[in-house]
Amino acid sequence: MHFSIFAMMKIQNDLILRAAKGEDIERYPVWLMRQAGRILPEYREVRGKLSGFKELVETPERAAEVTIQPVDLLGVDAAIIFSDILVVPEAMGLEYQMIEKKGPWFEKTIRSEEALKYAEFDFDVEDRLGYVTEAIRITNKELGGRVPLIGFAGAPWTIFCYMTEGQGSKTFSESRKILFTNPTLAHELLVRITKVTIQYLKAQIKAGAHMVQIFDSWAGILGKEQYAEFGLKYMDQIASAITEVPVTIFAKGAYNSVVEIAAMDCNTIGVDWNMQITDIRNSVGEKRTLQGNLDPCVLYSSHNEVERQTNNMLNSFISKRHIVNLGHGVYPDIDPEKVKTFINTVKNYELKH
Amino acid sequence: MHFSIFAMMKIQNDLILRAAKGEDIERYPVWLMRQAGRILPEYREVRGKLSGFKELVETPERAAEVTIQPVDLLGVDAAIIFSDILVVPEAMGLEYQMIEKKGPWFEKTIRSEEALKYAEFDFDVEDRLGYVTEAIRITNKELGGRVPLIGFAGAPWTIFCYMTEGQGSKTFSESRKILFTNPTLAHELLVRITKVTIQYLKAQIKAGAHMVQIFDSWAGILGKEQYAEFGLKYMDQIASAITEVPVTIFAKGAYNSVVEIAAMDCNTIGVDWNMQITDIRNSVGEKRTLQGNLDPCVLYSSHNEVERQTNNMLNSFISKRHIVNLGHGVYPDIDPEKVKTFINTVKNYELKH
Repeated sequence: MHFSIFAMMKIQNDLILRAAKGEDIERYPVWLMRQAGRILPEYREVRGKLSGFKELVETPERAAEVTIQPVDLLGVDAAIIFSDILVVPEAMGLEYQMIEKKGPWFEKTIRSEEALKYAEFDFDVEDRLGYVTEAIRITNKELGGRVPLIGFAGAPWTIFCYMTEGQGSKTFSESRKILFTNPTLAHELLVRITKVTIQYLKAQIKAGAHMVQIFDSWAGILGKEQYAEFGLKYMDQIASAITEVPVTIFAKGAYNSVVEIAAMDCNTIGVDWNMQITDIRNSVGEKRTLQGNLDPCVLYSSHNEVERQTNNMLNSFISKRHIVNLGHGVYPDIDPEKVKTFINTVKNYELKH
Repeated sequence: MHFSIFAMMKIQNDLILRAAKGEDIERYPVWLMRQAGRILPEYREVRGKLSGFKELVETPERAAEVTIQPVDLLGVDAAIIFSDILVVPEAMGLEYQMIEKKGPWFEKTIRSEEALKYAEFDFDVEDRLGYVTEAIRITNKELGGRVPLIGFAGAPWTIFCYMTEGQGSKTFSESRKILFTNPTLAHELLVRITKVTIQYLKAQIKAGAHMVQIFDSWAGILGKEQYAEFGLKYMDQIASAITEVPVTIFAKGAYNSVVEIAAMDCNTIGVDWNMQITDIRNSVGEKRTLQGNLDPCVLYSSHNEVERQTNNMLNSFISKRHIVNLGHGVYPDIDPEKVKTFINTVKNYELKH
């Protein structure tokens, strides 16, 4: 496999990679989900010159530019490539639109064997998703090894939800219906998504992603047994297939399955803000790094309160194996100065372990 | 207090009341959340003659008619008054609209002290919500004591969410923002909602509700500590105030707070389909009845599979203290025949305890 020269460049601040691997760290690393995005006026300026979200995702130079902004402006310990989990279903044959104030929308959905023709899996990922790998290459070149770059993809279950429901939903009952009425179709689609996702993550790594995160945003809508069958089974295949770089699994709401996730071949487990991080540490033990989990709404408080709540969280950690983050993506109307207070509080915190 | 004559009428099938109180039962009682609603063609016929959902809620004769339909057509062991949790914010001064395929929408929201003028609490509940109590009286008269009638209200936290966010949301970040930026305002609003809700539930009981359920649909979006402060505190006040009839608390997604809820003065705890009912039984012990929790999507399966999964759930019960239900409201496109299979499976199940 030919790796990008920039992927192999010496990383100056490799704190997050060491934390993921359970190596020694001087302080906890910190970054934010959705750090490259609407919270930054500089992002909105770049975005405003384009036709919309999708053009930004599909224009490597601009995607790289907004990926680097939070490194320069906020001082985070990692960049995450600016993209969307829905590029995968689109590459497979289901085009999506991102509708302002409403979210993603697919004209076609997959609810029958016949519709599986819109779920292609035998194609060259680099061919259809080259704009993402190109954005990764440009980002690393421009970062010059200052911090690591995180690649990502949606988990098969979450991608399945969008491909079958066709839009966001509180219950995803159309998606879940298929698990009962046509489990064979469900598994066939999940197998295809998994296959493409592994190739896609490997392409990101080859292009220069130093670690990858798998987002299972809708893990929490399944009961434990169904999540094992339709979610974790495929997540596990991805975790096992990615051996090149550290893997983070963020299965939001999967409080029933923390032990099963910790048993997978991953380095880091994302913890949402509803979960008790001490409970998760007790279930998981010392063999995995935890990532999270400040309530994103804390950043609406005063600077003093942000500092106090961040320190409370840090004080609750009984291990070095932590990557600090919010328990969900940062909300778009948060003041970037509050984000800086959060980040600086983490940076100034003296490790006790 | 003057109780309705129909409330005091001897109930022929009082299985659910006995199950709630932990008394002896011959078999498990069964009903479904949203049983009075779009799954029944007979409901759609009544609804079709009116201008919409709100007119149905506000027309006691018609509300009573659709409340009774599932007793006649499906054979459930309880009726639940056809209404909406949002009648309470509306009575307090925030009018809502129910927008087809979108859900509730409020023109005004409460995000400042000034807006508290839209959160009245010093009014006669019977005056503004008399259409609900009248519907309860008519329902009991027409039921003639066949089964008990369940009254209900939203929990203060969930009503707070709608009054501050103004519509449904995945994150309710506007609502949660207030908890951080203006906790005094949050508590003032929650105190008011609690006060009105207690009066409203007491009015329902006086009119003839034989038991009441408090729905905390958005319990799961708060972390444990915030839910204790802004959710459970007020839930507890309601549970303590309602001494006349059995109380059910359904706090969806509150997996962190099951022990705290069980410590309240309630009879029954609702269990959503993501929770493991055996885990909840282990946490709660034998002192409370559990209600739930078949995945509503199971009813999309074949009749045989509905029967099998229902029996699996029943076999997992290690106690008599159960009221059978789904783990969420029945989805509108479910075949009523599948609902009957679910109900009949419960009715035919032989109690082993």
